[in-house]
Formats: sequence, C-alpha cells, structure tokens
Amino acid sequence: MEKEKIYAAIDHTVLKQTTTWQDVVRLCDQAIAGGAASVCIPPSYVARAKEYVADKMAVCTVIGFPNGYQTTLVKLVETKEALSAGADEIDVVVNLGDIKNGDWDLVQQELTALKKACGKKVLKVIIECCYLTEEEKIKMCEIITALGIDYIKTSTGFGSGGATIEDIELFKQHIGPEVKIKAAGGIRDLAAAEQYLNLGVSRIGSSNILNH
Amino acid sequence: MEKEKIYAAIDHTVLKQTTTWQDVVRLCDQAIAGGAASVCIPPSYVARAKEYVADKMAVCTVIGFPNGYQTTLVKLVETKEALSAGADEIDVVVNLGDIKNGDWDLVQQELTALKKACGKKVLKVIIECCYLTEEEKIKMCEIITALGIDYIKTSTGFGSGGATIEDIELFKQHIGPEVKIKAAGGIRDLAAAEQYLNLGVSRIGSSNILNH
Amino acid sequence: MEKEKIYAAIDHTVLKQTTTWQDVVRLCDQAIAGGAASVCIPPSYVARAKEYVADKMAVCTVIGFPNGYQTTLVKLVETKEALSAGADEIDVVVNLGDIKNGDWDLVQQELTALKKACGKKVLKVIIECCYLTEEEKIKMCEIITALGIDYIKTSTGFGSGGATIEDIELFKQHIGPEVKIKAAGGIRDLAAAEQYLNLGVSRIGSSNILNH
Amino acid sequence: MEKEKIYAAIDHTVLKQTTTWQDVVRLCDQAIAGGAASVCIPPSYVARAKEYVADKMAVCTVIGFPNGYQTTLVKLVETKEALSAGADEIDVVVNLGDIKNGDWDLVQQELTALKKACGKKVLKVIIECCYLTEEEKIKMCEIITALGIDYIKTSTGFGSGGATIEDIELFKQHIGPEVKIKAAGGIRDLAAAEQYLNLGVSRIGSSNILNH
Repeated sequence: MEKEKIYAAIDHTVLKQTTTWQDVVRLCDQAIAGGAASVCIPPSYVARAKEYVADKMAVCTVIGFPNGYQTTLVKLVETKEALSAGADEIDVVVNLGDIKNGDWDLVQQELTALKKACGKKVLKVIIECCYLTEEEKIKMCEIITALGIDYIKTSTGFGSGGATIEDIELFKQHIGPEVKIKAAGGIRDLAAAEQYLNLGVSRIGSSNILNH
Repeated sequence: MEKEKIYAAIDHTVLKQTTTWQDVVRLCDQAIAGGAASVCIPPSYVARAKEYVADKMAVCTVIGFPNGYQTTLVKLVETKEALSAGADEIDVVVNLGDIKNGDWDLVQQELTALKKACGKKVLKVIIECCYLTEEEKIKMCEIITALGIDYIKTSTGFGSGGATIEDIELFKQHIGPEVKIKAAGGIRDLAAAEQYLNLGVSRIGSSNILNH
Repeated sequence: MEKEKIYAAIDHTVLKQTTTWQDVVRLCDQAIAGGAASVCIPPSYVARAKEYVADKMAVCTVIGFPNGYQTTLVKLVETKEALSAGADEIDVVVNLGDIKNGDWDLVQQELTALKKACGKKVLKVIIECCYLTEEEKIKMCEIITALGIDYIKTSTGFGSGGATIEDIELFKQHIGPEVKIKAAGGIRDLAAAEQYLNLGVSRIGSSNILNH
Repeated sequence: MEKEKIYAAIDHTVLKQTTTWQDVVRLCDQAIAGGAASVCIPPSYVARAKEYVADKMAVCTVIGFPNGYQTTLVKLVETKEALSAGADEIDVVVNLGDIKNGDWDLVQQELTALKKACGKKVLKVIIECCYLTEEEKIKMCEIITALGIDYIKTSTGFGSGGATIEDIELFKQHIGPEVKIKAAGGIRDLAAAEQYLNLGVSRIGSSNILNH
C-alpha cells in the first residue's frame, strides 16, 4: 500500500496529559504535510487548533476521555462546546460502568443524544475493547449500528490494551455496512497500520506514524 | 497510630473505568463500617451514591479526571452538576497543558472559577506531581494557597507515578497554613498511610486500605 | 384567615429585568420578617442570596424563564447550577411550542429530566395558562401528576394574563392528590391571596403582598 | 429605497412564547423568498430550522432572552449549543441587574466570554434601551466597541419599549466605526424600516415586514 494512502487514514493524535500548544502546532504541521485524515487533540485546544489549521485539516477531539464515566449531560456539553469551537469529528468513550451494570438502555440513551448533538459531524464511539467481554463487544456493535453512528473505535490508548486484529475481525462480523472502524492504541508504524487497513479498517489513531 | 484514626483520614476510592454499581455499594458499606472520611467515586454515580449513603458518609467525586485537559466550562458544568447531585467534595485535575505552556493566568482563572463554584464544599486540586518539575509544583502550591483552596492533592492514580514523601515535604514548605494535603496514588496499606499522616497529610486517597 | 398564615404561603418575588442586589436584599429582609415561604429571584442572584439568607429563608429561582423555549439541555444546566448554588426550589417554564406542536413526548421527556435533576428539592412547573386551551391545561395536569412533580403553577407574570380562579378550579379537577398548586400573576393583596388559598392553593407568587 | 434593499437588512423574527414549528417554517419560507438577512427564532428550534433552510438562509437565535438575568455560565452553554446546532448569529441580552448595580466589570467579563464563544459568528448585544439611562447606554456603547462586538441592538421586543430614533442617534455618537447597529422592537412596516436604515442602522429585527 502506498504511504500516502495510509497517511490519509490517520487521525494524527496527541493526547498525553502534558500536551503543550507547541506539541499541537507540530502535530498540525505534520498532519497537513503528510495528508492525514485529522488531528486528534485535547478538548481545551480545539478552538485554537481550528484557527491554526483553518480549512487545511479536520480537527478531532475526545469526549468523556479516557474513562467514560462522566455523566451524559457533561458529555453533551463537552461535545456541543467542541463543535461550537470548530471540531469536525468527535471521539467519545462509552460509559463502561453502564455496560458492566447491564444498563443497555442507558448506553443507548447516551449515544442517541450524542448522535443527535453531532448532526452531520463525524461521531466515533470508543468501546475500550480491553475491558469488554466478547458478548459486550458484540452488543456494542449492534447498538452502534442501530443508532446510525459513523464509527466504532477500539481503544482510548489509556486502557490496559489497544487495538487487536481479533477485535477488528469481530467488529466486521457484527457491524452493519454503514458503520466504519477506527483502530487505535499501540499502532506505531506503517506496517501495522497497513495490516489494519487491509482488514477493512477506515481510520487509524496513532501518535507515531506521521512524525517520523 | 490507631487504625480508626487512619481510617478517618481515608477517601475510600473506586475510580476504575469499569466500576459497577455493586462496586460502589460495597465501597460505601466499607467506608461507613470503617469510618472513612468519604467515598470517592465516578461522577455518573454521585446522585445514586448520595441517596444510598444519605447522611452517613460524605461523597467525593472527580472532575476533569484524570487528564485535566477538558475546557474550564466543562469542568464547571461537571462540578456544578456533581454538587447539585449531592457531592460533598470535589477533586479536580489541573490543566497540565496550561502549566507546561506557562499560562499561569489560565490556571488561576480556572481554579478561581472552580473555587467559586464549590462555595463551602471541599475543593481538592490534583496537580499530578509525576508530570511536574519542582518549580511547577512550588508555583502550584503558591496559587492554591493564594486562592484559598482547601486541599492540594498529589496524584490521580492514573499517571506515571503516585504520591511520594518528597512531594509532601515540598508541599509543606510552600503551602500556607490553611491548605491541607491529600496524598493519593500507590498508598496501599496502613503502614504507608500512617507514614503520610505523620508528615502532616490530612487525607489519603486509597482503594485498598479499607477493603481488607 | 390570619395574615401570618397567608404570608407563610407566599413566594416573595422580584423578577423584573432590572432587579438590583439592593432589591434582592430588601426582598430577603421582608420575606424573613414576614415569614414567607421563600424568596423567588433571578438565577444570577441565587448564590449571593443564599449566602445572605443562610438558613433563615428558602431560595427559589426561575428556569427557562419566562418564555420557556430554551433547549432541555440549557434548562438542565440552569437547574443544576441553581441547585449547586443553593437554590431550594425551582420554578421552570414548560416549552409552550412543544405543547402547541402536540409533541407531548418532548414535554414529558423534558419534565422527567428536570424532575430527576431536582431530586428532593421542590420543582414547580409553570404552564403559562394564558396561552393554553382548556384541553392543553388538562393534559399538563395529567403529565405533572404522572411524573410526581411537586407543583403546577399557573403563570410567569410576564404573559398576557396571570392566575385565574377558573384555572385553579380546573387544576383541582385534574391533578392528583400529591400535586400542589402555586398561583402567580396579578395577585397583589391579602384579600386576593386568601381567596386562592381558600380554593386549595398551597403557594402564592407575589411581588406586592409582603412589601406593604 | 428599494424594497429588496430593506428586506436584505431584516432579521425576520418569530419569538412569541407559543411559536410552533409551522410558524418557523412559514418564517423561513418568507425569509428565503424575500431575501432577508436571517431568520431569528427561539433556541429550541435552531437545529431543526438550520436543517430546513440549509445554506439558503442564516439562522439567528436569542440567548438569555428576554430578561438577561441568567448566569454567565448558562448564557455560554446556550450560545455554544446554538452554534453547535448551526446558528450563524447570536443575539444576547446583557445582564441589566449588573448594569444597575454598577458592576461594569461583570458586564465586561460576560461579554468577553460570549465574544470568545462566538468566534467568527456574528454576535449582537441587546442592551434593552427602555430600561437604561442615557449614561448607561453610552457606557454600553463604549464596552461593546472596546470588545470588538459586531452589533449593538436596541431592544428585545419584550420590554416596556422598542427602538427609538433617539437611541440610534445616541449609538452613532458613541460606538466605534466597526460596530454595527440592529434596531428592533416596534418596527412594523417598510417606511419605519427605511427611516432606521437611512440613519445608518445595518439590521432591523421585525416580525411583520416580511410577512405581508
């Protein structure tokens, strides 16, 4: 696969706790130069980054990140504020406690509200595979498909594990044809990215591939 | 030191991503039985936990947790919602990016707004020591003192390091007499807790001490 | 009826656009001296008024006021912020557009969320009778009863009409035994207040009765 | 003046409490057919109206409307939500209590935060002239100029008075060259609109001119 094609699928990401504005600028420059899909950055940098990249790059941010246990109201305000500041894509972490409690109605209500808040902007739901059983992952595939959500995403990168080939294969079996996949967490080089893209993944979250 | 005295200083904590309601109930029961200072739980459980413990235990929750890079508006909404749901204590993570950018005015503005939002409720500011230089830690001691914030707290437990004796000693030198200290991250037994309390720490965040 | 008994049912109110802090102080002093049920004030004064009255008087504020056509999210944030600032009672205006559109499910969803946000604090729903048909008023009585909301309230005082005897009589026929009534709008003296209280009204909203 | 030129300056408005979706649709159709500047509608209709008009008409909504005494946090959330739902223009009511209290720093802080929230979207600040002294109006002209706010607007249409020629003349003397004027409240026909436009007003808020 050509390098450019891989780059075009990358959400070029910096989400470490101590991310500086200089880090964000460097990330934006690399993303624009390399032709990435987007820059994925902390919420408090969205307005400034959007102004910096203007129309040259999509801006993605993370909501309820990385633990997912904020309230639905807070996730909604965080999403709406990010969109109002110019975010093009929203990566939100599902409430894993609701899943573990078996409160699937709460999971659905939260995602329904988030989907509505995003309108035509891209919504990616991070299910944090490393903490879910196969049954729970399948259920999340079904919910995300039913709600017409754009992407299912494997991992935050802050959990005990990242993307795995097995999870992508499981997703492929259980999501509808409209749902795309973002693999993230531990994908650090072109070869790994290519392997995921060859499996039908549409986006790769990575902090490393585009800065070499 | 008597066990009861140590217990009385503990914010009995469960903040793992997959925390279930059953986990929260067990935590509350242990905290009440052991005479803890509070239960420290994810925001989405505050209303339910407050109803469960009623007046028998203080409820503490975490804001902008654990990465701290949410916007000030989101941290404010999250704080106000937690207080409206009955939270007695608020542990908020400072914006580490602002610190690293040298934007101390932003750090101060955010903490000023959060202090105002908390009114007479207890506010603890987590500075996440593992990512700060000594100079930055000292500056945070000074800001927290100047703003009349109740507590400086060492760590989230999700960073690359937890509480250290050295950081407590540094705090003691640089905070005012009104500011109390909460040590958290990696304090797993009575002996460790006692060591911190003997240094003048007022609160210990721990998931382990009270469930044995 | 004794004057004291009437006073005890009054939400002593100042909601004019230009309300000053001095107006609020005077209102609080009158309410405390006269033994009112609460002071009803603009949202931006709640924190300060709560500090002023301390435990001597309940603080009530108005949400989505007076036009009711804010979004549910905004009404929720406004409610939660008011509660976090110490409000004891919440008077919210229903979305009249939803009613006129026949979107009763939206009306119910909004009030369900608001009821949950208020927990044990008092919630009063203003249906702004002057703009509703009899059928719509009856439907609102039924919804408010079904949701276990504390009070149905006649009017904002900013619409084309205030409380009427006929509306109170209609409410009495269609609300459940747990729902109380607040009459507001145009009730300016003790005689009028007494007439409403004799009909079974529990609260009177008035700016005039207690300042003579 | 040609009718088309007048129409092009009109924010075609429906803000009555009972506004239905049908009212909003009619308003949008009239605005598009007549070539208005925008449709000005209640916040809870913004998302739906934006979808309806798509790129054929700008959508304007009202924040803290009409009484202005909501908290700054609520006005910010309301603004950000409206922008995230597609609003192109924001008409916000100043906190008249802050003005009457002489808390000009609070007025400035609120408007600074709102200006920042709006980014490149149009912000109009309604000062509700009918309740202000000449001195207060002049002070508002100065603050709005200093903050680089796009428009000063005379009135909500819900106060005791609407636009007046005298206020426009006062504005012209005290605003900077970058600040535009919106006159609203009681302007019901082409002749009145023309009179205001001839004085240098850039926008007219009216519910009546475009539906004849």
